[in-house]
Amino acid sequence: MTSYIKIPSHLTPSDPQGSELLARERSKATFDVNELTLALYGSEELSRFKKILKILESDPILDKSNIYYMGRTELFKYALRKDKRIIQLAATHKWNVDEFKIASRLVDMSGPYSIHQSMFLPTILGQGTEEQKRKFLNPAIRHEIIGCYAQTELGHGSNVQGLETTSTYIPETDEFEIHTPHLTAAKWWAGGLGRTANHSVVMARLITNGQDKGPHPFIVQIRDLTTHEPLPGITIGDIGPKFGFNTTDNGFMLFDHVRIPRFNMLSKFSKVTKGTGEYKNPPNEKLSYGTMVFVRSVIIFNAGLALARAATISVRYSAVRRQFVDKENPMILPNGQVVETAVLDYTMQQYRLFPVIAQAYAIYFTGEIITNLYKQYIDQSSRGDFSLLADLHASTSGLKSLTSDIAVDSIEDCRRSCGGHGYSNFSGFTRFYQDYLPNTTWEGDNYILTQQTARYIIHSKQQSEEFSLRSNESPTIFYMLRYLSNPSQKCTVISPSDFKNPEVQLAIYGYRAAYLIARAVDQIDNHKKSWNSMLVEINRISRAHCQYILVHNFILTLQPQTSDSMNEKRRILHNSPSLKTVLTSVCNLFALHTMEKNLSEFLESGYLSPKQSEMLRVQISESLNEIRPNAVALVDAFYLPDYLLNSALGRYDGKVYETMIEWASKEPLNGITLDINPYSEKLFRNDVKAKI
Amino acid sequence: MTSYIKIPSHLTPSDPQGSELLARERSKATFDVNELTLALYGSEELSRFKKILKILESDPILDKSNIYYMGRTELFKYALRKDKRIIQLAATHKWNVDEFKIASRLVDMSGPYSIHQSMFLPTILGQGTEEQKRKFLNPAIRHEIIGCYAQTELGHGSNVQGLETTSTYIPETDEFEIHTPHLTAAKWWAGGLGRTANHSVVMARLITNGQDKGPHPFIVQIRDLTTHEPLPGITIGDIGPKFGFNTTDNGFMLFDHVRIPRFNMLSKFSKVTKGTGEYKNPPNEKLSYGTMVFVRSVIIFNAGLALARAATISVRYSAVRRQFVDKENPMILPNGQVVETAVLDYTMQQYRLFPVIAQAYAIYFTGEIITNLYKQYIDQSSRGDFSLLADLHASTSGLKSLTSDIAVDSIEDCRRSCGGHGYSNFSGFTRFYQDYLPNTTWEGDNYILTQQTARYIIHSKQQSEEFSLRSNESPTIFYMLRYLSNPSQKCTVISPSDFKNPEVQLAIYGYRAAYLIARAVDQIDNHKKSWNSMLVEINRISRAHCQYILVHNFILTLQPQTSDSMNEKRRILHNSPSLKTVLTSVCNLFALHTMEKNLSEFLESGYLSPKQSEMLRVQISESLNEIRPNAVALVDAFYLPDYLLNSALGRYDGKVYETMIEWASKEPLNGITLDINPYSEKLFRNDVKAKI
Repeated sequence: MTSYIKIPSHLTPSDPQGSELLARERSKATFDVNELTLALYGSEELSRFKKILKILESDPILDKSNIYYMGRTELFKYALRKDKRIIQLAATHKWNVDEFKIASRLVDMSGPYSIHQSMFLPTILGQGTEEQKRKFLNPAIRHEIIGCYAQTELGHGSNVQGLETTSTYIPETDEFEIHTPHLTAAKWWAGGLGRTANHSVVMARLITNGQDKGPHPFIVQIRDLTTHEPLPGITIGDIGPKFGFNTTDNGFMLFDHVRIPRFNMLSKFSKVTKGTGEYKNPPNEKLSYGTMVFVRSVIIFNAGLALARAATISVRYSAVRRQFVDKENPMILPNGQVVETAVLDYTMQQYRLFPVIAQAYAIYFTGEIITNLYKQYIDQSSRGDFSLLADLHASTSGLKSLTSDIAVDSIEDCRRSCGGHGYSNFSGFTRFYQDYLPNTTWEGDNYILTQQTARYIIHSKQQSEEFSLRSNESPTIFYMLRYLSNPSQKCTVISPSDFKNPEVQLAIYGYRAAYLIARAVDQIDNHKKSWNSMLVEINRISRAHCQYILVHNFILTLQPQTSDSMNEKRRILHNSPSLKTVLTSVCNLFALHTMEKNLSEFLESGYLSPKQSEMLRVQISESLNEIRPNAVALVDAFYLPDYLLNSALGRYDGKVYETMIEWASKEPLNGITLDINPYSEKLFRNDVKAKI
Repeated sequence: MTSYIKIPSHLTPSDPQGSELLARERSKATFDVNELTLALYGSEELSRFKKILKILESDPILDKSNIYYMGRTELFKYALRKDKRIIQLAATHKWNVDEFKIASRLVDMSGPYSIHQSMFLPTILGQGTEEQKRKFLNPAIRHEIIGCYAQTELGHGSNVQGLETTSTYIPETDEFEIHTPHLTAAKWWAGGLGRTANHSVVMARLITNGQDKGPHPFIVQIRDLTTHEPLPGITIGDIGPKFGFNTTDNGFMLFDHVRIPRFNMLSKFSKVTKGTGEYKNPPNEKLSYGTMVFVRSVIIFNAGLALARAATISVRYSAVRRQFVDKENPMILPNGQVVETAVLDYTMQQYRLFPVIAQAYAIYFTGEIITNLYKQYIDQSSRGDFSLLADLHASTSGLKSLTSDIAVDSIEDCRRSCGGHGYSNFSGFTRFYQDYLPNTTWEGDNYILTQQTARYIIHSKQQSEEFSLRSNESPTIFYMLRYLSNPSQKCTVISPSDFKNPEVQLAIYGYRAAYLIARAVDQIDNHKKSWNSMLVEINRISRAHCQYILVHNFILTLQPQTSDSMNEKRRILHNSPSLKTVLTSVCNLFALHTMEKNLSEFLESGYLSPKQSEMLRVQISESLNEIRPNAVALVDAFYLPDYLLNSALGRYDGKVYETMIEWASKEPLNGITLDINPYSEKLFRNDVKAKI
């Protein structure tokens, strides 16, 4: 370790030490942590994960110990170097796509090549013809060409149909002319465009024979392969500093009548005929939804892991951090000394943090289920069966919105629960939060997305005569039918512990969703309310529906299954009574805490009574008590290594304070001596001194 | 303007232009913006503000156009230079303390000297003897000594009584010995300590004659006045990069048996006698609460301005930004062209943003009232009358917590309502948000503070027989008495517009607060619940009480007053029917939206019925419609200049897109050309190129 300041080495934190406090927490757990880790990941993925972690941890280029001190240019330099390094390691160790993804997740920093991997290659693969793949895909895989994906424009985000950039077919030369008609049409935000990519997928309005066919994808070479300078007619730049993602060169781009061969329009689905400029429609509009569903399912899955990470840091630190003496129930050392109470013992801290643990598990399990459903859809769609798509599109839209909202709010709650140190970059929260945040905006703004989910559900309700006819019963249909059978039914709870019954939980969530839907349909159909005037209600419907799905999936995961339908992970879970017990507590907390957060909607329908809501609060408090001894073990089970967390507060070994001061001593500002006289124009007496 | 990239100058945004859209908004307002500005600030403060703004705007050292690109060291350098510059300007223009504060607010960046001004000087002034003031205050005012305030320790934040640093009286030499016994006792977070200060107020446990008298303030010289190096036995450093406040050198400090003269214990209230080491108690423990009340009242006031700033940026940008065509009610240009709809026309955007405008006004008026109340207290306390203190302490604690929570949440909501561009530093949100955020943690963590408010209120309730005896009726007593007169009363609303009645609003808020208090007292007194087990309810009580106060104060501001009790600002307001009309709409939206956000508590008590809650939603929607034509004018009235906002999105002139691309072209990364070959270890082909 190098540092600018020598910290006296004889000083230790006052007792009890963080390592002792965490050991004590771990000894209280009622289940086997390793077993739960296996039930989450399975043995194969876990061993792959450990193997890759070992390689990354010991690689000096991928060392993370200096990143918190870096400014934008330095950080970008680091990101470029690490992106190169991962490509080199992937070649050396012959990583497949999944292994590459694990490595990227652990290195945990978007970089200049990220979009090349995650968008450019898949777009050519999914939308290019065989000829186009030969021409572009192979050199791209060899990194001879590096691509980006330019869709959003300076004045146009969510509404792809509003894009202004044009691509006009010129029959004389059999070319397209790409052009930026206004400043608002400048391509904006494309990751890797600013400084890195030499090719781009450009979404532009296809104009042929004077007709506007709307946005289509074109491959455009944008920089010279030798000099790396932008090609004539193309203006490119980085869009500047951002809240998060400063390791990526998100870029802007303007075209001044730039010509590309007709060949470069990605033509697996639509094409333009040579010479005549005749346009051929895509065979099936639905195909393009598949990618959106996939990307959103990844966001849902990642929301679970992001929550696990936030909970890991804050729960561990709350076990180490002590504030005030709880006089009614003081913390006493073996030597009889009364010390300040660990903040994890305060009910308010439990009320803030344990629901986050529960959210992490709930969303993790739904993420798994959605991922499997997507695989099933891909399988069926390759045989021309698109029956799963509409439902999957509706639920992933709403779940992407809900889960990323939950994650962002909870990451920030966890950060704030760390008190002052939560503001330090060393907490591991600040970069993490900023980099996670855009999940609420990209791939569909979270407010706008809820319209898609609600539109689908409302449409289903409006055609409710179909309900009983459909064979494949969706959850929506299930709870709608139940509601319609008796709209004035009441919740059956008569004591707090009744809230632990999964049937009761689902009935409550189902009734509330159905009630909101029925009310909105009434407003639209019978009171002729405009869609715009209903947007607040529409948002509520999507959330209500998706909360039902999350609770439903968690309950399903814990329900007995026939042994032959279970994979390894489920077998581990269902063979261990102690795992099932603790996860049942977690599931209850998730269902009940989410209910409490949205209580007014449950009360408004009249289904839940004020008296029952008081019982709900009692039962939540009971769930917090159940989870208390297992809090640290439940976050440990996610197996998020210190290399990923990069946090002084969330370290596995509890050496919080030692790490905080060690990392502070490395702050480059500590190498500078000031001239503090306010009337002297000189600022520093020296440049940065050498580290000691 | 210098930039790295040449943007084609012939491109303009597509029509309609931002300037036209904002002009159209401004022409729709139903009131005179200048009149409202005067009613907010008064003519004297406004002209002072304009005078100082003019000086700052034209000062090249205080130019803000490059700050978004700077890394930590550069930014700190900038902050040091601007801190020096403000001191120079203050001397040149003979600014008084208020004028200095206006300048600091406009420059809007904490710096290395900030704590010297805001904590070091006031502490000596408030807690030093006349002799101590002579010795320390005068050179400090001349900036010969620069001070900081070291209280918080690495392991100790909120609980001052838990501090570990000791100051032991040594009778032999008549000195104190300051010492850091453990690593957790390292002073941490002190602003200006890291690199700047040469003196510090150090809070340390006073030990004399073997007895621990708890934390007291000592003045310690910490750096050499010539070399600016730390003195022997003292280790100092900057604590490293943070979320926000990177322009300040928050520092850490460790003491190894450091001696200071006995004279350096700030002794206005407590002292230690020479030789005998006898300790003299402070005459009145209450005195130290005064400063806390003051600091919290400033935070409350600033929360209103922070909300105004967030609303200004997001409302203006929402008038310029257009997304999708609202088919039921499209936006049509004079030439008949249908264009995308301004996002401010979507009800969801109104539902997100207009309540923030309302919060800004509500908190601004409460901030004024609290500030006046504090002045009244200071006046009375100088005559030995502390009767206002307990109430003021309780309400400022809870209001600090509530208003800073509202501000943080709403700033972030406003940022997200700006879509993708909200992530750019150029939005004016990112640094603003990060720098505002610590208000939720410092000067009392927002969760912990609510305990102080609730404890006071609960204590009042428990001694409820006193209620009718007290002459000075506080709001708490008013609503408690009303509740106790008939705990099973019901809300009288029978149509949505009844919710506009201020009496009805106050009755609803009062009942809900009283109900929560009565229930908690019952749990504590009759069911022997521990304080720790009640923390969630306690938090609710404080919020309920403080929401009542905010609504109450807003209503009070708008109520007719006798003309001789009014100052200039109130006279302007009460002489203008158009101002009163628009502010009444704003007041209603604040009261009703806040009610809806906490609806479950109103429903749970049974005071509000589910049917009434539906009427509430109808009335909120009505309030949004009332505010729509005045939205831009209401934010304009806060008179926050572009110099303060430093935002491409929130510019007064609406030139959003032109500014975004101009600022992007200045990103230093745009001066770099990469070597993108993943197998080349070289990263850049050049260092940063000269700007064009």
